[in-house]
Amino acid sequence: MTTDPSDDAGPEHLNSDEETLIAEFWAPLANGYAGAYDLKDDAASIAVPPDEELIVSTDALIAGVHFFADEDPGAIGWKALAVNVSDLVAKGATPLAYLMHIAFPERPQSQWLQAFVDGLSAAQAAFGCHLAGGDTDRTPGPLSISITAFGTVPAGQMIRRSGAGVGDRVYVTGTIGDAHLGLALKRDAAMLARWDNPAATAQHLIARLVKPQPPLNVIPALREFASASMDISDGLMKDFERLCRTSGVGGRLQAEAVPLSPPARALLAAGETTLPDLLSGGEDYEVLACVPEARAAEFEAAANKHRVCVTHIGHITPADTGVSAVDATNRPLRFLHKGWDHFA
Amino acid sequence: MTTDPSDDAGPEHLNSDEETLIAEFWAPLANGYAGAYDLKDDAASIAVPPDEELIVSTDALIAGVHFFADEDPGAIGWKALAVNVSDLVAKGATPLAYLMHIAFPERPQSQWLQAFVDGLSAAQAAFGCHLAGGDTDRTPGPLSISITAFGTVPAGQMIRRSGAGVGDRVYVTGTIGDAHLGLALKRDAAMLARWDNPAATAQHLIARLVKPQPPLNVIPALREFASASMDISDGLMKDFERLCRTSGVGGRLQAEAVPLSPPARALLAAGETTLPDLLSGGEDYEVLACVPEARAAEFEAAANKHRVCVTHIGHITPADTGVSAVDATNRPLRFLHKGWDHFA
Repeated sequence: MTTDPSDDAGPEHLNSDEETLIAEFWAPLANGYAGAYDLKDDAASIAVPPDEELIVSTDALIAGVHFFADEDPGAIGWKALAVNVSDLVAKGATPLAYLMHIAFPERPQSQWLQAFVDGLSAAQAAFGCHLAGGDTDRTPGPLSISITAFGTVPAGQMIRRSGAGVGDRVYVTGTIGDAHLGLALKRDAAMLARWDNPAATAQHLIARLVKPQPPLNVIPALREFASASMDISDGLMKDFERLCRTSGVGGRLQAEAVPLSPPARALLAAGETTLPDLLSGGEDYEVLACVPEARAAEFEAAANKHRVCVTHIGHITPADTGVSAVDATNRPLRFLHKGWDHFA
Repeated sequence: MTTDPSDDAGPEHLNSDEETLIAEFWAPLANGYAGAYDLKDDAASIAVPPDEELIVSTDALIAGVHFFADEDPGAIGWKALAVNVSDLVAKGATPLAYLMHIAFPERPQSQWLQAFVDGLSAAQAAFGCHLAGGDTDRTPGPLSISITAFGTVPAGQMIRRSGAGVGDRVYVTGTIGDAHLGLALKRDAAMLARWDNPAATAQHLIARLVKPQPPLNVIPALREFASASMDISDGLMKDFERLCRTSGVGGRLQAEAVPLSPPARALLAAGETTLPDLLSGGEDYEVLACVPEARAAEFEAAANKHRVCVTHIGHITPADTGVSAVDATNRPLRFLHKGWDHFA
């Protein structure tokens, strides 16, 4: 049975108006957040403690663009929130609340809605935030979910993209390229068949695509030691270039130092992927951070203390040296493309 | 020439990547708002003064659902922001900033983009707020614009839907039903032809549909005197029912007291529309407010002082009396439907 929310089969379609949909499915997600007013008002209040600053970010998922329309609805809910929390985490902000606009191509199935809400609910619990409000529409287009996420940092301490200095070390959290491989596995069943050991590890790569886990535990270390940071969503190389450009610096990544998961290493060894592919694949939802050399040891210790894995993958260089990734022999990697661009 | 952003004709399509689009078209809208970081970061900061509270609301416009795909792009930009500011105004909040997610069905034309930005820019100036961030996508569906708007009220003073008390007077700002008639005129050229005097006044009704003007000037009077309020977006009757339900009260509107513009009166007299149609048409983007009888004179004086027209159209009654609109002979009006619902 398909889980496409627009599926027309069966008697289980939501048989109620927008307000019932809000009360039955969305309002439970707002439980515990007073400023949501039980989703019974036109707007929500966000109370920001006087010594804190509100950080806001918005990211959308569109069926057929950002996820497969028949994706597990729980995973869609999780990912819709996770990709937004990823931006907050990279800025050093603690998640607080979010607003959601959702547009359905057809009257949604109750079963689909409940699974979607369950995924959002699990993500809320994992990330420590609540639904504060939203807007529900019908659309002649695909299912679309646009979330605006709110987080807080001590006033004036948002970590910018623009603070990287020459000599800074470049770090990433977690491993890179898994989601790219997960997508390749979903698209190409033959790749799975060619591979010796699919069942054991394909699951991991696909989970990295459909259920990203932004590294909340890195927030304290970022706040204390990072000169610049951003989340890696469009491909490590593309996002590293963006960070360098915004900071007015150059940078060099050691491709061999980029952390890969065991399944990614296996697929690389099998010739199913390349380092440039992994470094430009996108959807990692890890954090790219720069740390002054003098603070690097403390940064690593702080990350370890909070049980988040950070790996030193390169350095910030003067602007006129450009941005590159080099292999073990110091030769620049060649990229067909460095990451996602909806308009390029 | 069509102004549809997805039109494939001509050499003027935007020939650049997402970052150039942001820098050329969106960044000028963020000028003057420091927390937007020139749209060069993953997130924005919203600084909330310590004695104020942040009010947030989100509303989307989808081509083919909320506006005609070939609508003037400047009007689309204006309306996308106006419908969100309308929610802030109804809550007594002063607009501050907004985030915008926009999804284009095709690579947009530069000319379309510039007109859209000009419309947003005019709306920003009128409403006193700036773009603080956003997200730009491509979609296989229709053009979609989802805005999250931020405003501020003195801490704890957001005007709720839930505060109406029995005996309160019910007020609306401006006039009701114009946008509904504007939509009818756009859809039905014959209606325009049947009408004696179209050129003089059709323009007014259509402008009320495509360029709503939320009444910012009513904010001081609302803050000081309103017990409950909301914006009228889905139809006066539907929204009045919502307010009464949330407040746990009943209510009665005197249909004859509902303020109509001269063109609406003319079309009503000509039999082209009915009072129930006008009271349920939607898209008014006026404010519905309740004011205790004892403060009514002060409320009206405060509104007049700020040059905003408010009209007393009914009363709040006990819950068991229900919600109704009555004609001049005190007979309840009959409604085919009381307003918009995307799911009913």
